[in-house]
Amino acid sequence: MVEFLHVCTPESWVVHAAQSQQLLLVDHANCERKAASSALSMIYRYGERSKFSVQLSRIVREEMRHFEQVHALMQTLQIEYVHLSPSKYAREMHVYARENKPTKIDDLLIASIIEARSYERFERLEVVLEGKVAKLYSKLKESEHRHFLTYLDLAKKIDEETAINARIQELLQYEAQLITRFDDRFRFHSGDPVKAEG
Amino acid sequence: MVEFLHVCTPESWVVHAAQSQQLLLVDHANCERKAASSALSMIYRYGERSKFSVQLSRIVREEMRHFEQVHALMQTLQIEYVHLSPSKYAREMHVYARENKPTKIDDLLIASIIEARSYERFERLEVVLEGKVAKLYSKLKESEHRHFLTYLDLAKKIDEETAINARIQELLQYEAQLITRFDDRFRFHSGDPVKAEG
Repeated sequence: MVEFLHVCTPESWVVHAAQSQQLLLVDHANCERKAASSALSMIYRYGERSKFSVQLSRIVREEMRHFEQVHALMQTLQIEYVHLSPSKYAREMHVYARENKPTKIDDLLIASIIEARSYERFERLEVVLEGKVAKLYSKLKESEHRHFLTYLDLAKKIDEETAINARIQELLQYEAQLITRFDDRFRFHSGDPVKAEG
Repeated sequence: MVEFLHVCTPESWVVHAAQSQQLLLVDHANCERKAASSALSMIYRYGERSKFSVQLSRIVREEMRHFEQVHALMQTLQIEYVHLSPSKYAREMHVYARENKPTKIDDLLIASIIEARSYERFERLEVVLEGKVAKLYSKLKESEHRHFLTYLDLAKKIDEETAINARIQELLQYEAQLITRFDDRFRFHSGDPVKAEG
């Protein structure tokens, strides 16, 4: 995945995440719900073809299943579900892409980037986390990878691969900024929790 | 279910539905998607408790599974998915309930009424339809019944049963108007397709 994304998650984010397991899990549950919501929105907006809708419907179901798995894990670990403001990450990607005017290609490409980033973060986290959390994250990682490929394939079906590639590089460049900038609100998709010196 | 709902679906709607299988299936697919979307919205709005969110998440997954099953059936029957304006039914129930200001109890009660009506219509339709459609509808009916009970139970947990009962009777009375009024736009939840004489 590192060859797709422009930057790796900063080590400081991984360290912070390992020390903030409660916050991480609650925000992660929210992310699964938002991923389902985003796939469902795309069925509404772009579901004129049955096959497209069914592919996205399967993603919705899988994200909700993950949502339930994270909730079950929180219960096991006696972590209470609390209200958390959402991460700015996904919203900022959409604002950047089209000043909030959604297009099918951008929505699919942003979804594929978010899945790729989630995969990369799960891969980093499964090393530093332990027990049931590490086990779940290792499992979820594979789904994120599948979803990443599904969204990318769906985008490629709309337009020539060369046009997609140029756009995805633009989006990835912006995404790299979000991931490496200082961000004092820790979330699953937040930026660097430590301010760069100088 | 007839003892819960105030009125049965008019026979004229059932006759019309049996003759409009394509329209029925396409709108039905949309209804499953909307049911998932509505359950997901309730997780956003009212999902402060883990158990509530997980119950609704299971409903989301089941509705999307039905959505996929309807799409598979349409493909088998070579019915093309076309864009259809939505039925006014659910929206009008919400407008009536709170002039569009959602409350948890009303949202749950309206969801339970919609599931009850869907059950009643599937029960009527499985008699007049044939083959694979009748078979699917007979199966889906049982899910609608379960969802009806889940939503009703969740509403009962918020408030005393007596308060819920008064409110549900008000909502059912309005629902009965929507179901029996003349409605020239045939949909899964539309009113009477035949104008009453006089």
